[in-house]
Amino acid sequence: MIQKLISNIQKTNAPVVVGLDPMLSYIPPQVQEKAYEQFGETLEGAAEAIWQFNKEIVDCTWDLIPAVKPQIAMYEQFGIEGLKAYKKTVDYCKEKGLVVIGDVKRGDIGSTSAAYATAHLGKVQVGSKTYSVFDEDFATVNPYLGTDGIQPFLDVCRQEKKGIFILVKTSNPSSGELQDKISEGRPIYELMGEKVRAWGETCMDGDYSCVGAVVGATYPEQGKILRKLMPHTFILVPGYGAQGGKGADLVHFFNPDGLGAIINSSRGIIAAYKQEKYAKFGAEYFGQASRAAVEDMIKDINEARMRI
Amino acid sequence: MIQKLISNIQKTNAPVVVGLDPMLSYIPPQVQEKAYEQFGETLEGAAEAIWQFNKEIVDCTWDLIPAVKPQIAMYEQFGIEGLKAYKKTVDYCKEKGLVVIGDVKRGDIGSTSAAYATAHLGKVQVGSKTYSVFDEDFATVNPYLGTDGIQPFLDVCRQEKKGIFILVKTSNPSSGELQDKISEGRPIYELMGEKVRAWGETCMDGDYSCVGAVVGATYPEQGKILRKLMPHTFILVPGYGAQGGKGADLVHFFNPDGLGAIINSSRGIIAAYKQEKYAKFGAEYFGQASRAAVEDMIKDINEARMRI
Repeated sequence: MIQKLISNIQKTNAPVVVGLDPMLSYIPPQVQEKAYEQFGETLEGAAEAIWQFNKEIVDCTWDLIPAVKPQIAMYEQFGIEGLKAYKKTVDYCKEKGLVVIGDVKRGDIGSTSAAYATAHLGKVQVGSKTYSVFDEDFATVNPYLGTDGIQPFLDVCRQEKKGIFILVKTSNPSSGELQDKISEGRPIYELMGEKVRAWGETCMDGDYSCVGAVVGATYPEQGKILRKLMPHTFILVPGYGAQGGKGADLVHFFNPDGLGAIINSSRGIIAAYKQEKYAKFGAEYFGQASRAAVEDMIKDINEARMRI
Repeated sequence: MIQKLISNIQKTNAPVVVGLDPMLSYIPPQVQEKAYEQFGETLEGAAEAIWQFNKEIVDCTWDLIPAVKPQIAMYEQFGIEGLKAYKKTVDYCKEKGLVVIGDVKRGDIGSTSAAYATAHLGKVQVGSKTYSVFDEDFATVNPYLGTDGIQPFLDVCRQEKKGIFILVKTSNPSSGELQDKISEGRPIYELMGEKVRAWGETCMDGDYSCVGAVVGATYPEQGKILRKLMPHTFILVPGYGAQGGKGADLVHFFNPDGLGAIINSSRGIIAAYKQEKYAKFGAEYFGQASRAAVEDMIKDINEARMRI
């Protein structure tokens, strides 16, 4: 699957991913109102608004981008109906040829991690039948529990030709509370980077591994170190745009081949119509505002890539 | 909510929690067959088998126990249908007066963590209406992302009188890869224990905090240290039974008041009929086998508590 991601990046010349994290406050009034007219102010109504919002953004951007990253929490908060909208979004994006990174940050141990891997990347057995369930292409995984939590994901990745991105150095201000602690003379995120490299070596697919890492755009110095430490690891980089990461910060996240990183923006793209810069589109043409924001983001990032 | 948990523990004199982690391989053939006759070998059929299995176990044990801990991964692997069975199980257990600990191990940052907290403990707003969604009493939370990931859960706990258990030292063999790393002269799990204590101080409810910790029964020495480090923290202790933890290992997880810990067993209870010790019940009376296993577990743990 990492080869499909690479091929999509090369086709679009755009190492970017659009984060589909639809908070209701991002969804224009006319989309919400239409959904509530049909389903009432219910969880079903909210799910319909989310789905229509996502569909418009995907329809307006899919030809420019290699991948999307739906954040499952934003759907899970609307319960079963929200998760149906998540699944519908995953399926629709795959139909459009996009790589889908399920930002699920799951992680547990043994048979429980295996169940999460099955849910998001694998197939579940029911009697004599098997079913794909959420069926994303990649999932994000939390490494706090160690190899026991990761191994079941590796097994499913190999079997189903899927991939994962493991949290290493997250983009948020307090990520250092644990991840920057010094142990054995080095910060935890470096030790975690080494583990990701080792796990990844068992799952190579061409020059890159199906085991990627998450490293925040807000920590460019750490990104530079981790890039060198994990040469065959694709880095999923959140924190660009609304969280403060800039294109110029990203140059060291890439390898000399111009690959090895994919930069996520969520709010900055999907709620672009709310920014002054894209206000001319208005809430009515929010999808076109997202398209313009994607074009600007690609330009900004490719300028950084030119400096590799 | 921690006071409700304490009250349930005192009423039953049983600091135990039954882990409702229904792998299909634990569900007796007659339960599966009946569900498949009705719904086919489908995700809906699997969900029905899980629900009927859970219901029988709850019906046979609810009067002996204070709480249950459904593991959401085991439901999530069957997709939307599985999650409907999860929700049905949560609701049914709450109707029976049980405290429900959603073992969801969620954790993210900012608005995303807030969405998870809303999904599992809070209420979501849709237009002018609000809805409770999965609505467990407690949720387990992963601390890899630091305070940014925890704070939204604390806010919801205070608002909704709910609680969380934060992963500190997990029961699995490889938990030490990260959690035992030495930093500032102390293992990470101790530093995390101090953070849990500090977070918990902002959410007290009587003698205990609504912020608990997860510490595995398989690490009794670490449990002893963490017990002293976090005197007002309730400890959720997995790893008893099938994972190798014994009653005698558990004495130091309790406070002198006989409280402060609740011991989980999943497979050891829900698949008891498969053990030689309870084989006399047969697959047909699997619920009664679970009841006998709960009675034995309570006895074993109360013997340990007598030695506090």
